[in-house]
Amino acid sequence: MAQMTGTFTSSRPLHELTACEVGPLLREGRLSVEEYARALISRVQSREPDIHAWAFFDPESILASARKLDSLPPDQRGPLHGLAVGLKDIIDTDDMPTEHNCPIFKGKVPASDAPLVTMLRSAGALIFGKTSTTQLGCSSLGPPTNNPHNADRSPGGSSTGSAAAVADMHVPLAIGAQTAGSVIRPASYCGVVGLKPTWNAVSREGVRIYSISLDTVGFFARSVDDITLLTNIYGLHDDTQPPPGELDFSAARFAVVQSPAWHLAEPATDAALEAAAAALEAAGAEVERLDLPELNPVPQWHATVMAAEARISLLADYGARPHLLDASARAQCEAGQHISRSTYTTAYDGIAALRPTFDALAGRYTAIVTPSATGEAPLLDEVRSTGSPAFNAIWTALRVPVVSLPGLTGPNGMPVGISLVTPRYHEQHLLRVAQSVARVLAPRR
Amino acid sequence: MAQMTGTFTSSRPLHELTACEVGPLLREGRLSVEEYARALISRVQSREPDIHAWAFFDPESILASARKLDSLPPDQRGPLHGLAVGLKDIIDTDDMPTEHNCPIFKGKVPASDAPLVTMLRSAGALIFGKTSTTQLGCSSLGPPTNNPHNADRSPGGSSTGSAAAVADMHVPLAIGAQTAGSVIRPASYCGVVGLKPTWNAVSREGVRIYSISLDTVGFFARSVDDITLLTNIYGLHDDTQPPPGELDFSAARFAVVQSPAWHLAEPATDAALEAAAAALEAAGAEVERLDLPELNPVPQWHATVMAAEARISLLADYGARPHLLDASARAQCEAGQHISRSTYTTAYDGIAALRPTFDALAGRYTAIVTPSATGEAPLLDEVRSTGSPAFNAIWTALRVPVVSLPGLTGPNGMPVGISLVTPRYHEQHLLRVAQSVARVLAPRR
Repeated sequence: MAQMTGTFTSSRPLHELTACEVGPLLREGRLSVEEYARALISRVQSREPDIHAWAFFDPESILASARKLDSLPPDQRGPLHGLAVGLKDIIDTDDMPTEHNCPIFKGKVPASDAPLVTMLRSAGALIFGKTSTTQLGCSSLGPPTNNPHNADRSPGGSSTGSAAAVADMHVPLAIGAQTAGSVIRPASYCGVVGLKPTWNAVSREGVRIYSISLDTVGFFARSVDDITLLTNIYGLHDDTQPPPGELDFSAARFAVVQSPAWHLAEPATDAALEAAAAALEAAGAEVERLDLPELNPVPQWHATVMAAEARISLLADYGARPHLLDASARAQCEAGQHISRSTYTTAYDGIAALRPTFDALAGRYTAIVTPSATGEAPLLDEVRSTGSPAFNAIWTALRVPVVSLPGLTGPNGMPVGISLVTPRYHEQHLLRVAQSVARVLAPRR
Repeated sequence: MAQMTGTFTSSRPLHELTACEVGPLLREGRLSVEEYARALISRVQSREPDIHAWAFFDPESILASARKLDSLPPDQRGPLHGLAVGLKDIIDTDDMPTEHNCPIFKGKVPASDAPLVTMLRSAGALIFGKTSTTQLGCSSLGPPTNNPHNADRSPGGSSTGSAAAVADMHVPLAIGAQTAGSVIRPASYCGVVGLKPTWNAVSREGVRIYSISLDTVGFFARSVDDITLLTNIYGLHDDTQPPPGELDFSAARFAVVQSPAWHLAEPATDAALEAAAAALEAAGAEVERLDLPELNPVPQWHATVMAAEARISLLADYGARPHLLDASARAQCEAGQHISRSTYTTAYDGIAALRPTFDALAGRYTAIVTPSATGEAPLLDEVRSTGSPAFNAIWTALRVPVVSLPGLTGPNGMPVGISLVTPRYHEQHLLRVAQSVARVLAPRR
């Protein structure tokens, strides 16, 4: 299905290309941003009736932005020149509404871009639209988005549309945010790469607050290299730059951690974790089973902190216009009310004390290998529940970077992700490892 | 100087009344909100040419809001009905610009109120305008505001106009935010009551981020009771409700803490701390001098965390339009670049580990008594520097509530505040203690 462009002929449809594949063509002018945008727009138009990934999508304004990017002389083209990025609709944009899937914000266009959007635009990105989210990024009731691999199943949430849009090849890149498992879980369900970086490594200004000490901006793409592209524009450097090139598996040591959420693991997750461990061993790595009883209180601590902080975030709207919040958001605000100040500080301080301990421990391994979700994407129920974040909440609380890799599938043919985890601020090391591990997990790619 | 109103005659000018004094008159309809607003507007109009407390002030829209409040039937009037509140100009309002004293935001009107503004409006407050701030609430270069007690001296910052507007009796209440000493220091310099509550006790959504783990919304008023009024609408309850009535000083035990910043104390601060200790002893309280060597690393940890996190907040604008940031904001972004990830996490984790220890220690006392500033408000210099936050940064880092009380003066006749500190989430206890201590510090009031 070759496509003809000005000077460029691809053997694959343009929408299938990753950011790293299409980026050089755009920067070098072998493909115009407008042509690329038209290809993606037509992909969205053919698929969106089944997927519903977008909360705001306006082809005319996309094309206007594309033409502006095309008019830039080559020496002014940024590292993301012309690359289409979807933004979770809790992220402020000054040229599109930011509606948070909540009637309070219906049609409201923020006065300024979130700084993370400013940085995307500075790098030349083509902001493609706003992706669907659960209400205010906090509700567990899903938007009308369907999983691209099977429309009867949930794409996960709360960064629902960001995961679905990347998986369904509407855009190569998307931004989301995670408070429990809102990036890693949808990445797993939709079979894409997801990165939840270290907490506050990327500015969360202009991104709706849910639980301030947990909320973390995260990324979706279809390759690890594409995620690295995003981390570079956000300045996510490690203290020590990892060596270039492939990981030497014979010198690598992985710890497989079932985590305190293991009792929730379905057979698909059990099998995926075993398959990942076997693949790493087959590649020559040392693989150790690691029990971490220190993590046992973390799920409850996370739940306590999230509920108490959610109440702070929701209190104004809950007081002024509760009928405009959905049942899940209201219930969260009410639950937070029953958490005492001392229960909250005990949970908060407990997690905080564990962070340096965990960093030291995780630092002894190339990476920790752990599930991304309890199983395959669940069948959609009446309220479109987005699945369990149990396997993600622990790492969000510890604020460590997590990448979810696709490549494995469950008994229903749905993707099952595998998470790699490192100490805080080791994103570049993590992504280098992930790139090699991704090949081992999905050798046919 | 009596003022006549519909059914109300005051022996004092209306602008001199505290919120608790004027509140019942407004709620009971003995004074219309419009009349009250007109009195304050005329106070602002006569004083503003000397004070410059306001970044946005529009009498017509204030009067329109006042008339709307007057039209509310008595049973729909909230606890802040008609009370005028100034908002630091880093707090989003959907009917006034939020300019952050930064050309990037010139004339920009946010699409939504910050939740803290929604809660004020829900309680019936009359939003009076936006108060001056240093750039983005982070710069050390002052806005054109003068100290109401002496126009040659700084009112402090970064919540400059909020402190000055309350001190100069333009409004009885104002909201600010503190990352190092941006509420407590200007409260001290301007001779008003300031409260920095526990971190994240009030939602900071829609309040510009400077250093996310330190920034804390705070309050200004001319009486402790007025501060309590604000804490009530924000739901700042303690786990245990303090007993009603006055503090029994004979059963009270205070710890005087000079803190690791003591080497910066000027004679005015030394004398004020001694005077406060003597006044508490004279009232019958036990007063202990407490050395806390555990706090010694906190100033450096605070500086590290603030600089590293400031860089995250400023990075987008620094990259895209550095010429629109002032020299102090630019310098902070640059300084953050030289802080390694491990230096940051060591500082962050060090503070986090100290918090429960400090809470337990502070909980043994009725309150800790400590300086609010290094001395009297400094003379304004060429760049209108806002003074040193050294005595505040420690408590901001520990996230504990701090109230600054006026009542003492320095050798130049300028106010010198005294801070009271308690464990996290003890705002109501702190304010009850502060109310009694305020009488002891300024017995003639």
